[in-house]
Amino acid sequence: MIYFDNSATTKPYKEVLDSFLTVSSEYFGNPSSLNALGGQAEKLLTKSREQVANLLSVKQTEILFTSGGTESNNLAIKGAAYIHKNKGRHLITTSIEHASVRQSFEQLEQDGFEVTYLPVDSTGRIQIEDLEKAIRKDTILISVMQVNNEVGTIQPIKEIGEYLKSHPNILFHVDAVQAVGKVQLSLHENRVDLCSFSAHKFHALKGTGVLYVREGVRLSPLLAGGGQERKLRSGTENVAGAVALSKALRMVLAEGKNGMERMKKIREILRNGLSELEEVQIHTPIENAAPHILNFSIKGIKPEVLIHALEEKEIYVSTTSACSSKKKSSSATLLAMGVPDELAESAIRISLSFNNTENEAIDALSAMKEASDHLRKVMK
Amino acid sequence: MIYFDNSATTKPYKEVLDSFLTVSSEYFGNPSSLNALGGQAEKLLTKSREQVANLLSVKQTEILFTSGGTESNNLAIKGAAYIHKNKGRHLITTSIEHASVRQSFEQLEQDGFEVTYLPVDSTGRIQIEDLEKAIRKDTILISVMQVNNEVGTIQPIKEIGEYLKSHPNILFHVDAVQAVGKVQLSLHENRVDLCSFSAHKFHALKGTGVLYVREGVRLSPLLAGGGQERKLRSGTENVAGAVALSKALRMVLAEGKNGMERMKKIREILRNGLSELEEVQIHTPIENAAPHILNFSIKGIKPEVLIHALEEKEIYVSTTSACSSKKKSSSATLLAMGVPDELAESAIRISLSFNNTENEAIDALSAMKEASDHLRKVMK
Ligand SMILES: Cc1ncc(COP(=O)(O)O)c(C=O)c1O
Ligand SMILES: Cc1ncc(COP(=O)(O)O)c(C=O)c1O
Repeated sequence: MIYFDNSATTKPYKEVLDSFLTVSSEYFGNPSSLNALGGQAEKLLTKSREQVANLLSVKQTEILFTSGGTESNNLAIKGAAYIHKNKGRHLITTSIEHASVRQSFEQLEQDGFEVTYLPVDSTGRIQIEDLEKAIRKDTILISVMQVNNEVGTIQPIKEIGEYLKSHPNILFHVDAVQAVGKVQLSLHENRVDLCSFSAHKFHALKGTGVLYVREGVRLSPLLAGGGQERKLRSGTENVAGAVALSKALRMVLAEGKNGMERMKKIREILRNGLSELEEVQIHTPIENAAPHILNFSIKGIKPEVLIHALEEKEIYVSTTSACSSKKKSSSATLLAMGVPDELAESAIRISLSFNNTENEAIDALSAMKEASDHLRKVMK
Repeated sequence: MIYFDNSATTKPYKEVLDSFLTVSSEYFGNPSSLNALGGQAEKLLTKSREQVANLLSVKQTEILFTSGGTESNNLAIKGAAYIHKNKGRHLITTSIEHASVRQSFEQLEQDGFEVTYLPVDSTGRIQIEDLEKAIRKDTILISVMQVNNEVGTIQPIKEIGEYLKSHPNILFHVDAVQAVGKVQLSLHENRVDLCSFSAHKFHALKGTGVLYVREGVRLSPLLAGGGQERKLRSGTENVAGAVALSKALRMVLAEGKNGMERMKKIREILRNGLSELEEVQIHTPIENAAPHILNFSIKGIKPEVLIHALEEKEIYVSTTSACSSKKKSSSATLLAMGVPDELAESAIRISLSFNNTENEAIDALSAMKEASDHLRKVMK
């Protein structure tokens, strides 16, 4: 099996599953229980929080465990907007965010907020000047993803953070779900106030995530209740999930620059090979792109058909983002980049992990060539 | 080890953990991915949903997977209130709900809704007459827990449902988190519109739950995004968690009436034994109580002291509800039942599972007697 759909989800590391299992069966107490089993569970939770904080070079109290990237994005955006609604009702984001960001803003629009969606250039990047122009006196929040999940474009987070240093009242949220382990991020240095992570994108488990909340930043909670996670996210804590998340984060970050370079090399093999195929257009930019994503269209070939042809050889790729793959519409990201509709609707996404190899890329290339030659013949 | 803190959380069944592991490692695809791995994951998710629906005698489309009881309660209450806010802004609940219900209502109060908190009698039950009197023209939602998590009192859900048949416009939400496997519930017959479940309370995993949403009932989503779970709960689905949940639910419900009777017998051994101890007051009522909870106070003995004394013998009990156990305040439920403050603040909760035995009850009783005799001597 060649698994090239790591932006949709990754295979959990064996060590991570082992930890999950141990905690679930041996340290199953409720961290809020006053007894010793509760105490053990609470200690494990605290240790995981410390580890995540250390790995991200932030404070332990700045880490909230959530149920995933979608919850982290919803909590950050709606939580910040609602608590500051009396200071202003203008929000800024980009036109290529993940559905969980976009729809959070759409909910806020229905509730009386005004949102500016920044355009992107043909590489999928926003311009700092557009951001500067969009800022108003009543702007309270800016949300920009670090790495786009469809094409891999990296946004100028550092520059935005730098620029926002002169706007201390505007909160800065970053969706880093696709960035973990693939692109570096300094939360404190880049003046990030809120940052979302999703564990199943880095070899931990679905249904677990993190929201980084800079010290002093207030949020209106989405999930009210027992007051867990500093009252910002109630609900019995998924201790085993948090332990698994912290372990995976450590393993993934340990791959470091070497790991990123390895992925980049595989991606370049794919890029070069695909460029030689007939009527291929590659949408992932050369500069400012994460090392793990390669998005392309083969003109005239329907993506589902290619996906199923590859599947027969146990090669797994996907269309654009997983969430929107079942709605038969063009990728909003590609359209925003100016890709014509007929190409945007036939986009294929290959997404890598540290476990992929150069040989897999070579095998996948020849399978793609064979499949596309065959499909072209059949269609004629 | 004698684990008597099952209302805080339960130990996951081995078979449930095995299923979780298999799905996480072998069927790890994203259900929204167009490829075959995604398809396999989606099939497993659908199978789990069907199984849960069958076990609850409802339709597959009426089952939403969530991140737990807290999310289910927040989504049901706030989701229903916000989508119907133009029809009315009056809500009804009881004075003894779990924090995740109570705080959801408090958030709504801050947002312009009006809430009536029904009183309870000395056994912790509401009176249907009080409910009838509380209903107004602008009432849009009633939320009543099935089994109280602190004392185990069962509310008259059937009667409420019967009564509400003449009020088709009022939504009826039931928090059944403490009821699963312990008290029966017929969702369709009892005219329940929304019902919350939490997997870690019935031997599945923390961070997973269900919200039953009756066909035709609309909600404003808390988590917006990719449109999973019929657009009501976005976020990459925790497939392994759902499989584990459905398996545990099947196992727990298979215990049936026999299992409930077994627990009741253990609880009665505890009740009788405790009644013989000095200065013990039992708060769990004789009638209309779930079989797994026994709540009591030993006058003059601080609950944390007793808990730690029992802990030395590897017997684990707890104070009131897990969530509020670290706030040093009296149980709101006990106060609402009219229990005096000095007794309410020293309450201990024993909560059973199907795995507990009569011998454990006998051992725990003698340990409690010994501990309380000793503590009394020390205090003199
Ligand atoms: C950029 C981005 N943000 C957010 C999410 C949502 O995360 P989750 O799948 O944990 O809900 C995803 C993936 O689906 C993503 O790619
Ligand atoms: C009655 C009741 N409702 C809701 C909850 C919350 O469920 P969860 O722990 O899954 O958030 C609990 C337990 O904590 C409970 O006992």
